[in-house]
Amino acid sequence: MAMMKAAVFVEPGRIELQDKPIPEIGPNDALLRITTTTICGTDVHILKGEYPVARGLTIGHEPVGIIEKLGSNVQGYQEGQRVIAGAICPNFSSYASQDGLSSQDGGCSCHGYKPMGGWRFGNTIDGTQAEYVLVPDAQANLAPVPDGLTDEQVLMCPDIMSTGFAGAEAANIKIGDIVVIFAQGPIGLCATAGAKLRGASTIIAVDGVDARLDIARRMGADVTLNFRNVDVVDEIMKLTAGRGVDAAIEALGTQTTFEQALRALKPGGTLSSLGVYSSDLTIPLGAFHAGLGDNKIVTSLCPGGKERMRRLLNVVASGRVDLGPLVTHQYALNDIEAAYDLFANQRDGVLKVAIKP
Amino acid sequence: MAMMKAAVFVEPGRIELQDKPIPEIGPNDALLRITTTTICGTDVHILKGEYPVARGLTIGHEPVGIIEKLGSNVQGYQEGQRVIAGAICPNFSSYASQDGLSSQDGGCSCHGYKPMGGWRFGNTIDGTQAEYVLVPDAQANLAPVPDGLTDEQVLMCPDIMSTGFAGAEAANIKIGDIVVIFAQGPIGLCATAGAKLRGASTIIAVDGVDARLDIARRMGADVTLNFRNVDVVDEIMKLTAGRGVDAAIEALGTQTTFEQALRALKPGGTLSSLGVYSSDLTIPLGAFHAGLGDNKIVTSLCPGGKERMRRLLNVVASGRVDLGPLVTHQYALNDIEAAYDLFANQRDGVLKVAIKP
Amino acid sequence: MAMMKAAVFVEPGRIELQDKPIPEIGPNDALLRITTTTICGTDVHILKGEYPVARGLTIGHEPVGIIEKLGSNVQGYQEGQRVIAGAICPNFSSYASQDGLSSQDGGCSCHGYKPMGGWRFGNTIDGTQAEYVLVPDAQANLAPVPDGLTDEQVLMCPDIMSTGFAGAEAANIKIGDIVVIFAQGPIGLCATAGAKLRGASTIIAVDGVDARLDIARRMGADVTLNFRNVDVVDEIMKLTAGRGVDAAIEALGTQTTFEQALRALKPGGTLSSLGVYSSDLTIPLGAFHAGLGDNKIVTSLCPGGKERMRRLLNVVASGRVDLGPLVTHQYALNDIEAAYDLFANQRDGVLKVAIKP
Amino acid sequence: MAMMKAAVFVEPGRIELQDKPIPEIGPNDALLRITTTTICGTDVHILKGEYPVARGLTIGHEPVGIIEKLGSNVQGYQEGQRVIAGAICPNFSSYASQDGLSSQDGGCSCHGYKPMGGWRFGNTIDGTQAEYVLVPDAQANLAPVPDGLTDEQVLMCPDIMSTGFAGAEAANIKIGDIVVIFAQGPIGLCATAGAKLRGASTIIAVDGVDARLDIARRMGADVTLNFRNVDVVDEIMKLTAGRGVDAAIEALGTQTTFEQALRALKPGGTLSSLGVYSSDLTIPLGAFHAGLGDNKIVTSLCPGGKERMRRLLNVVASGRVDLGPLVTHQYALNDIEAAYDLFANQRDGVLKVAIKP
Repeated sequence: MAMMKAAVFVEPGRIELQDKPIPEIGPNDALLRITTTTICGTDVHILKGEYPVARGLTIGHEPVGIIEKLGSNVQGYQEGQRVIAGAICPNFSSYASQDGLSSQDGGCSCHGYKPMGGWRFGNTIDGTQAEYVLVPDAQANLAPVPDGLTDEQVLMCPDIMSTGFAGAEAANIKIGDIVVIFAQGPIGLCATAGAKLRGASTIIAVDGVDARLDIARRMGADVTLNFRNVDVVDEIMKLTAGRGVDAAIEALGTQTTFEQALRALKPGGTLSSLGVYSSDLTIPLGAFHAGLGDNKIVTSLCPGGKERMRRLLNVVASGRVDLGPLVTHQYALNDIEAAYDLFANQRDGVLKVAIKP
Repeated sequence: MAMMKAAVFVEPGRIELQDKPIPEIGPNDALLRITTTTICGTDVHILKGEYPVARGLTIGHEPVGIIEKLGSNVQGYQEGQRVIAGAICPNFSSYASQDGLSSQDGGCSCHGYKPMGGWRFGNTIDGTQAEYVLVPDAQANLAPVPDGLTDEQVLMCPDIMSTGFAGAEAANIKIGDIVVIFAQGPIGLCATAGAKLRGASTIIAVDGVDARLDIARRMGADVTLNFRNVDVVDEIMKLTAGRGVDAAIEALGTQTTFEQALRALKPGGTLSSLGVYSSDLTIPLGAFHAGLGDNKIVTSLCPGGKERMRRLLNVVASGRVDLGPLVTHQYALNDIEAAYDLFANQRDGVLKVAIKP
Repeated sequence: MAMMKAAVFVEPGRIELQDKPIPEIGPNDALLRITTTTICGTDVHILKGEYPVARGLTIGHEPVGIIEKLGSNVQGYQEGQRVIAGAICPNFSSYASQDGLSSQDGGCSCHGYKPMGGWRFGNTIDGTQAEYVLVPDAQANLAPVPDGLTDEQVLMCPDIMSTGFAGAEAANIKIGDIVVIFAQGPIGLCATAGAKLRGASTIIAVDGVDARLDIARRMGADVTLNFRNVDVVDEIMKLTAGRGVDAAIEALGTQTTFEQALRALKPGGTLSSLGVYSSDLTIPLGAFHAGLGDNKIVTSLCPGGKERMRRLLNVVASGRVDLGPLVTHQYALNDIEAAYDLFANQRDGVLKVAIKP
Repeated sequence: MAMMKAAVFVEPGRIELQDKPIPEIGPNDALLRITTTTICGTDVHILKGEYPVARGLTIGHEPVGIIEKLGSNVQGYQEGQRVIAGAICPNFSSYASQDGLSSQDGGCSCHGYKPMGGWRFGNTIDGTQAEYVLVPDAQANLAPVPDGLTDEQVLMCPDIMSTGFAGAEAANIKIGDIVVIFAQGPIGLCATAGAKLRGASTIIAVDGVDARLDIARRMGADVTLNFRNVDVVDEIMKLTAGRGVDAAIEALGTQTTFEQALRALKPGGTLSSLGVYSSDLTIPLGAFHAGLGDNKIVTSLCPGGKERMRRLLNVVASGRVDLGPLVTHQYALNDIEAAYDLFANQRDGVLKVAIKP
């Protein structure tokens, strides 16, 4: 039985590199040889035991790789082809997917919905921080990488870029909108880039780290606010002459940013939430105008599927958005434990780490 | 100076009938002689001092009447014409109105938004519980009543029907949706009727009063749940085989109904909130899927304007919806204090009270 | 080799019942034993040679039946279960399907789009006018029929109801809209029912056969116009005081109805086209306001998939719409040639014919 | 009576500078002293007698100027303030405006719709090619120009930019879309810029003049096609591997471009039409997939109003789009007849001409 290296969740506090068998493929699967993957904030939640997964599971959900083998039902691809797959790998036959909610796909079960059900890699099946990964429903999920793009250029497509852009899309941005994005980690930076792509004319980026705010400017922010120096909501109200913003994107997952996002809105504005929260949220009565402000709160999970990936790859290929600055570090898969240590502790200005088997 | 009777807010706990001058009209106004008006739950909040208005203000925001005088700039109407005006009377020139948010209209101020700014009758200007009312921006707000409709048939259009339907519209209902409506007071009943009008195929109505649930069935409910007898969320999950509803409409304004609405949703479902809340709200982490469920929470304030009123009047004229059962009592304006007493204490199965000057 | 009866396209002018082998299923297929099917206008185009299909193909695309066998990859169903499948059976993995255009699904080909590509039964694969039919991508396309519904009650779901409702949905009908539907054949009647389900308050049905206009009233029409007696566009303008309708649905496929639909619109109105045209169309300059009228022309092909079918079945089960009156005749499969003769010549007030193997 | 210079339509073939009285303002009007205006293609249609207006009317609909006088009802502005107004100056109280169709505003008439009714300057009232212009419904239509922007920078906002962007907005562009724009005159160039602002990742610009295609690249085109050198539809199919584009924007107004736009679409794609047509259009059966392709044809008239202008001004102020290259020539108002001669004959690479009173 051929073996491979894989980063495995052992117990809370411990992800380690182990030997595992290279997966056998079924008729609807593909086997990818990973060339580059990365670590996500969610993986750190798993590491810390805050998000439970099965012991022994391979972690990671952001694959760039080469098709090693194709299942018998998978058509239109060739072995040796360079592809990505989304972090979310839905079964597009499900009721939820046909209902436009593929990230909440419940598979073949009778009702066909499951919260976050489309997220399988490193959650319910073995993930991408390994030499090989099995892609389920490969026909629907493999997206060829255009020639001339490096692994690093497309490494954000499976999750970070798809999620950040979804935050801008769900905010229903219109030409000329004023938009604020709370938190400029990788997803917030992509939401900033996404807000620009949708036609916002004033983009306000908020973070507590000046280096991230500098990158936010490169992604399209017109104004940056360091919450350590200013009262963010006051400042936004000054910038908008008391009107508030058309849309606020939350990209962290805390009560503070959620609440500030709500307070920054114009009556009728939209709070587009991307953060993963870890406790109940409070909606302050006043910020919510007692329920009479025509406001919207919308949440988005990363969209997946080959069509979504194709579009994001085209955005990268067009040069519209350059997410290169987000990949700040590179490690061999063999050194992934050190990469986790760096990333979990947010040392050395890390944004995203390229992991190379 | 000609005088009229008007129900005036004197102090918390006291609304009383007083003599006031009949208003003088400006060039953009119309003076209506009220033939029928009604009392709204919001008026009870005002009575109790929970929603502050100026002392001496005439209360009420739901007018059916006859044009007594037209301002010099108001064209296309005649004195003597029978009309309604919305509870919300926006200035459609404002930035907010042109931005599609006329209920949040900030008038001519520089930024042009004000939370609930379109609500003027009985809030920022004298209201409709009087013999006469002055309608501002009359050109935009007067809607002729089709011949053959009684005052009672159109009395719900200015507020209750517009609000309840808005809850169904904001829920983005699609043909074949399963929709639950929490609370079957007048607004909830109209939301139930609205859900049917938009094509929901399974409508679940929730309340604690069986008589209201009976009326809910007449408005289109397929299933009724009395929360005094069943665990509502459990029951909804049984009815939907564990899937949850496509949309939940909240028509009361409490933490309990808000939270149940959220828990009743399928992943990706929409909570459409109509209630007026009186304290902060909590979003439970699990019901919110930690922010990853692709859920939406949307709030709506009653839409106004003559086009909205025209459409609602047409719905009534078409016979699609019969809101007659909602007008359970009738009082003379002279007896409005007794009407408030009945309505505020929800005695005698009251839903809405027709008030006749 | 087990054999079955099937209605086969032999040559233009000739569809005849032949013996064919019962199909062998692959891993993603299901074999249905047809209990009821029907003949569509499109089948008559095929019969006449106006729409080319391969000689020897089994015709028909509207199945009600029992699962006889399930492919090894098809989960969540049981043999013996009563189901329908849409006339359009998309592969939901394709680029087009993931792009929200499953009826234009190009399968696994590189670009993933093909005009009308989702229509396979009786077009590119053997159809439903037979004792058995093989359903491709069964996991995505089989929809269980709720208990208590007859074959006749659900026989319109696969095509006629899905198409007619799609016409109303694409017209973007809002509460209080005025809508006209041109032609009250089976699809136009369903569009009429669909317009009511979406909240139109004035529905105008147009046809040249009074018996169809009578059924239109049962489907929700408020006004009926027989084009043999009145100038339809003039009449609509009178009915709308010169305003025009919000939306016009074309359900025939001729220049005359297309053009009248355009002329009946308000500026900014939507022409929703369902008809299958057989020649170039002309857009008259004036009716199009020289391109400056903010008008929309939208076309719809029947939506398919199990989620669509589930929703339509729920509409039937709810009693919201009763399409029983559309099934005017019944024939045994053995007599299908007589049924074609009746249907193609529109004799005896035929709307739809139930065919029973 | 104070007099001013104005460019007046005398008869087909003759627009000439005349002396006219400076207009008197009513309570809802403002009087602008024009600082810069321009000539539109529509004005050339008027000059040639192809679009009829009253003899003696002042032409022009694109004002940049200073508020000279404000009507008594117009609040929130000061005399001396620098403003623009849209080419389309709707009355936002009308039924059409409240229905979201302000460009088709029929004013106070009973039904409230009129094709192109919002276009008043130089069409139904005196226009902007004069020293002064009266702005109707000034409260709704005056938009202050942000400090630091030149007249030339904002001169495209009233019409060209609003129209071109509307073409991109109506095309419902999504991130990653492939979009083609037919004709790269001023409006087509703005549609190109608008497509980029909405997130198209491949923008194909088509024209017959290489100089215009060069500017198209500066506006965001990734690929340019000169129809004199290539078969445009063939080339688009090659560029998209046979798939077709997501959206095609027509910005000329001819059968050829309309038809090519249709042929360039993927099944399910949208043709967004901006051109002013001068004859009936033909929809070829094949390009329309016989009505079964899920295609959309949408037309847009320039949106107006102060909120639209505010947004466009913000886009200019943000530096997102630089339309400077579109103003190729400058003339004094006294020389406007020469400017018409240049512009009507498209000499000297003219795109737009700044006219300075």
